[in-house]
Parts: sequence; C-alpha cells; structure tokens
Amino acid sequence: MLLEKTLQAIGELDEQAMQKTQARLDSLTKPPGSLGSLEELAKKIAGITGNSMPKIDKKVIVVMAGDHGVVEEGVAAFPQEVTPQMVYNFVNGGAGINVLAKHVGAEVVIVDMGVAVDIDSDKVINCKVRKGTRNMCKEPALTREEAIQALEAGITVAKNEIAKGANLLATGDMGIGNTTPSTAILAVFSNVELELITGRGTGVDDDGLSRKQIAIAKALELHKPNPEDGLDVLAKVGGLEIAGLAGVILGAASERVPVVIDGFISTAAAIIAKSLNPLSVNYMIPSHGSEEPGHGLMLELLGFTPLLNLHLRLGEGTGAALGMNLVEAATKILAEMATFAEAGVSDGK
Amino acid sequence: MLLEKTLQAIGELDEQAMQKTQARLDSLTKPPGSLGSLEELAKKIAGITGNSMPKIDKKVIVVMAGDHGVVEEGVAAFPQEVTPQMVYNFVNGGAGINVLAKHVGAEVVIVDMGVAVDIDSDKVINCKVRKGTRNMCKEPALTREEAIQALEAGITVAKNEIAKGANLLATGDMGIGNTTPSTAILAVFSNVELELITGRGTGVDDDGLSRKQIAIAKALELHKPNPEDGLDVLAKVGGLEIAGLAGVILGAASERVPVVIDGFISTAAAIIAKSLNPLSVNYMIPSHGSEEPGHGLMLELLGFTPLLNLHLRLGEGTGAALGMNLVEAATKILAEMATFAEAGVSDGK
Repeated sequence: MLLEKTLQAIGELDEQAMQKTQARLDSLTKPPGSLGSLEELAKKIAGITGNSMPKIDKKVIVVMAGDHGVVEEGVAAFPQEVTPQMVYNFVNGGAGINVLAKHVGAEVVIVDMGVAVDIDSDKVINCKVRKGTRNMCKEPALTREEAIQALEAGITVAKNEIAKGANLLATGDMGIGNTTPSTAILAVFSNVELELITGRGTGVDDDGLSRKQIAIAKALELHKPNPEDGLDVLAKVGGLEIAGLAGVILGAASERVPVVIDGFISTAAAIIAKSLNPLSVNYMIPSHGSEEPGHGLMLELLGFTPLLNLHLRLGEGTGAALGMNLVEAATKILAEMATFAEAGVSDGK
Repeated sequence: MLLEKTLQAIGELDEQAMQKTQARLDSLTKPPGSLGSLEELAKKIAGITGNSMPKIDKKVIVVMAGDHGVVEEGVAAFPQEVTPQMVYNFVNGGAGINVLAKHVGAEVVIVDMGVAVDIDSDKVINCKVRKGTRNMCKEPALTREEAIQALEAGITVAKNEIAKGANLLATGDMGIGNTTPSTAILAVFSNVELELITGRGTGVDDDGLSRKQIAIAKALELHKPNPEDGLDVLAKVGGLEIAGLAGVILGAASERVPVVIDGFISTAAAIIAKSLNPLSVNYMIPSHGSEEPGHGLMLELLGFTPLLNLHLRLGEGTGAALGMNLVEAATKILAEMATFAEAGVSDGK
C-alpha cells in the first residue's frame, strides 16, 4: 500500500525551474557551462525540488545495516559479527562515515534492517525485518512480503527525515557479505558474465572470489529472478539493507528530495528502485566510482558518470558524503556568484 | 638567487612518516586500503610534511592574473579587459573561486603578475612584471630575466603565506588567452600534434580554434623552445601568471607544504616546476580533470590521475578548492577514525 502510493507519487523533473536555473547560471561571471557538472547538479536539484534557487540546509546520510545468509558459502573476508560491531562503531562516531559526515556537515542516521543479532542502542532505528537473509544458494533470500516490508521501512525512514527538515539525503550500507547479493542483482539486470562483474568486496582472496562467483551462479540458476519484476529480484537474491536503501531512494523521490547514491551496494539499491519506477532515477545523484569491477556497469545502467574518482570500496556512505559536499557547492555557485551585470564584467558578446 | 636556493631546498618525501601513517591507516576500522585515494592522500601529506598525523588548519588559494600578447592573434573568446574585470570580481567576492573557497573554508590571495592595465586595489598583491606578455608569434613572450622575476615573485608569495600559517596551498589562474601559452608548453614537453591538444579554452568557435593552433605552431617554429630547459620554454611561450604559479609550487615544495593543482593553466605551471626540479612533483596534489583536451596528457606527464571528474573549464582554482576539501577529509580520516582495538571490531585476521 505505502509502496504503491510512493511509486505513484514519483513524477517528472520540473522543467520550468530547470530553465530558470539555466538562465541564472548563464548570467553568472564565467563562460557558459564552464563549471560543468556543478552546473548540471544545480539544474538537477532545481528540477527535483521545483525551486530554481534551491538551498541545502539539512543533509542526512541514512546508513542501513543487514546480514546475509549467503556468508555460509565463504564469500566474505570478514566474519559476520563485524556487522553489529560496525553498527556500534557508527553509534560511537568512530567509523569512516562518521568522520566524513562530520567533515561535510551531515547527520548520520543508523538503521537496523536485518542484522543477525539484536542491536542494543537507542541511537539505531529498529526496522529489523528478520535476523539476516536466508542463504540464497539454498532458498530465496527473502519472501516477497519481507522485501516489501523492508522497502516500506526505507520509505518511512526517508519520509521521517524529510519531515524533520532534511533536504538532501544520501545512502550508505553495512553488511558483511553484501557485495554478493549486489553482484547478483547486477547480473540479473545486465546479463553480463559473472567473471567480469564479481569483485573482491572488502578483500576476499582468490578462493573466496571463486566461491563468490559459484554462489551467485548457483542462486541465479536456482531462482531465475525475473528482471521485469524488480521485487522478484530483490526478494530472491537481494538483501534487507539493499531493500531498505531502495526504499529510501523511492521515498526521497516521492517527496522531491535529491538523494546521493554511494558505491556498489547503494547503486544496486538504486537499480532496484529504477526497476520499480524508472522516474526515480531523476532524483538520484551519483557520487563516486567504486573499485568493485561491476560498479561502472551499474552506473551505466542508470545513465550516470561518477563525480569522484577516489578508488573507494568501503561503503557506509563514505563516497556519498563527499558527493553531498559537491551538491552543496553547486547550489552555492547558483546562489552566491555575481552576474556579469552585477560585477561589471563583459560577457564577451 | 632565490630561484636557485629554492630549487636546491626541495627534497624527497619523508619515508618514515609515510610508513607510520600507513601503519595507522591499517589499524583503522575499515578493510585495508578501502578508502583508496583518501588513504594515499593522507600518506602523501605525511611524506610532504614529515608529520605522520598532519593537520590542515589554514588553506590558501593563490590566484594569479596576467595578460597575453598573443590575444592579438584572435585566440580568445573574451576580450582582454575581462582579465582586470575578473580581478575586481575576485576582490569583491563574486567569482566562482570566491564561492568555492568559502565553501571549503579557504582564503583567496589575489596576485597581479602581469595584467595589461594597472589594478587599483589594496586587496591585490602587486607583483606585476610587465603589462602582459609579448605576442609569442612575433617575439619571445618574456625575457629569461622576466621569467625568473615572475618565478621568484611566486616563490615569495608562497613563502609569505606559509610564514603566516598556511599549511595547504592551491593554485588558480586568471588571464584571457592563457590556454594558448599553456597548450604551447604542453606541446614542447609532449611532442604531441597540436590538433590533439588544442582546445576551445573559454569557448572559441571553429575559426578561433584554428587561429589558436596556427599561433601556437608559429611560436614553436619561431622560437624552438628547448624542453631540456624549462626556463627557456617558460620565457619563450609561457605567461606571467603561469610563471608565478610555477613559483608558488616550487616555494611550497621547498617549505614542505602540499600544493593542490587546479586545471589546464595550473598544470602547465606544474609541468614547468617539474622541469626545473623533478622532485617538486612530490609536493603537488592533483584535483580535477579539465575539459581541455590536453589536460589528461599533462596529468600523465606528472604521473597523476585526477580526484574529481567535474568537466570544469573555468580555472581560477575552482577545481583545486574542491580538491583541498578532499585533502582535508583524508587528514581527518587519519586522525579521527577509531582503530579496530578501540572500537572492538574484528580485523578479520
């Protein structure tokens, strides 16, 4: 119900606002278009918000955590207990995302979508659908109902943050093993050979990489996820934090709030969101290009080129935090630069 | 004398500090190396400063302005009077660099290296060597003495800012026509066909582009700058702001202060700095990849890949300002993230 309503609420960009923003950009003291992606970002934020001079004043990074039954297959470099350990690290402010969020002036909202153990902290939003997904090599990771529940939890988190004033969201993930479902999702939508898109995640060795490919191949063969039905893909080979993040993206899109997409896991969530409503892509802002070999292809499926080239492979929203800073820079260019007329500069015409 | 002394003072990176930084990075709660370029940046700043936990607390962008006799050949999209107009725009805070510097918390220092008219502002440092370079299609742009004077002015500006506490510098430029000398410099050091590396600068049309290629070819043919002698190249086909920025880079390097390099013009200055002392490259941090077609090749000559992919072509230090923000992020990662031991997170070993 909430999912359907949210999908229906996602509309086109506001062309009129974008035209007004373009006119303003062209009046500023610089050669037309010379601020490249910053100008494109400013225009996109105008189209998203319907405001030709949008202002970013509350930035929120939603970091969602979940565990994955498929880790039984030996696909991850770290043990599963690292998922809750890192959630507590987020709570205590010691993780990479905490440092970068503080650096760019963003808040971190931590959500338990499906960590395998109970999380004991009032600083973590409890949306746990179940304690980890099922092992997709043996059965579907989630039921369709669980996938919907996780999507709707994400939508609600986004709507709540927006109701509290957030006007720029970003996505982040934590979940040992989660490059495996993300790669499986990419494989379904791209139909590219697994050898080309399966990477080392947080650093598996050659044997682990081989087990990972075998596990993904087995799950795809067993469940035959239908790329025409994003919910089917999400349930069969997805993850709870991936579902939650897809929900965050859809929730932001339905409220006309831009959402910055982090790396490999978040982009898998973005691909799920796109499959549920292609218009949702209008509300997404790419950030960095990840070191995971499949990430470039994921970005291509969305029609994006990354803004940052930092060889990151941490997740948590770290690349998205830095991307938020660029979005904010773009809105400041629009609002704060002098026009040719104001500055008495010849526009060369 | 100052130039020679400065070149001799540039040393190797501090390997010991870099090793200590690497050990600290590997103890932090993330898979080793997963913060990619941010980790590399942290290590490089440690090597530059000799401090394994460097802190950035005063960021200064040096924006140098100069005019170019070669504009007589019709190589630029904007009239020459835009150079001083933009200098006053910098003074009044209305330009792109002012907005982005404020966004990242950096100061802008404006230097007149050779604007064709007098600049009447006590907010502009007057290092004018002459009122614009000579038209390199007819005679060398500068005498060797003028080139040295401009380099030494840049060194002095850098040293003064560092004496006042700056511990991260960046370069920016303003000068109508200055992609022409920058392209000429690249041509001398790369020996690549002009068709492949000559771009539209601030936006010349096809005729302008053709005049630009012809002008560069004529100057190279007339003066035959010697790539083994950077000063010869700088004097014959360079520019005063380019020389000043090369001086800033050398001055920063001699004081072991990192300097973030902006786009096409600044990277031409970096190539001049490298030709005068190859060790200076150790102290440079690349920022963005410019839309100018030759910029990728320039970065290759320095062994750099850009951190930002924003399709900028404005100059002024705009890309470098955003790059400074990433350098600062890298030092905060190093200083502020929790270690595995502190956070009670398994390191997977």
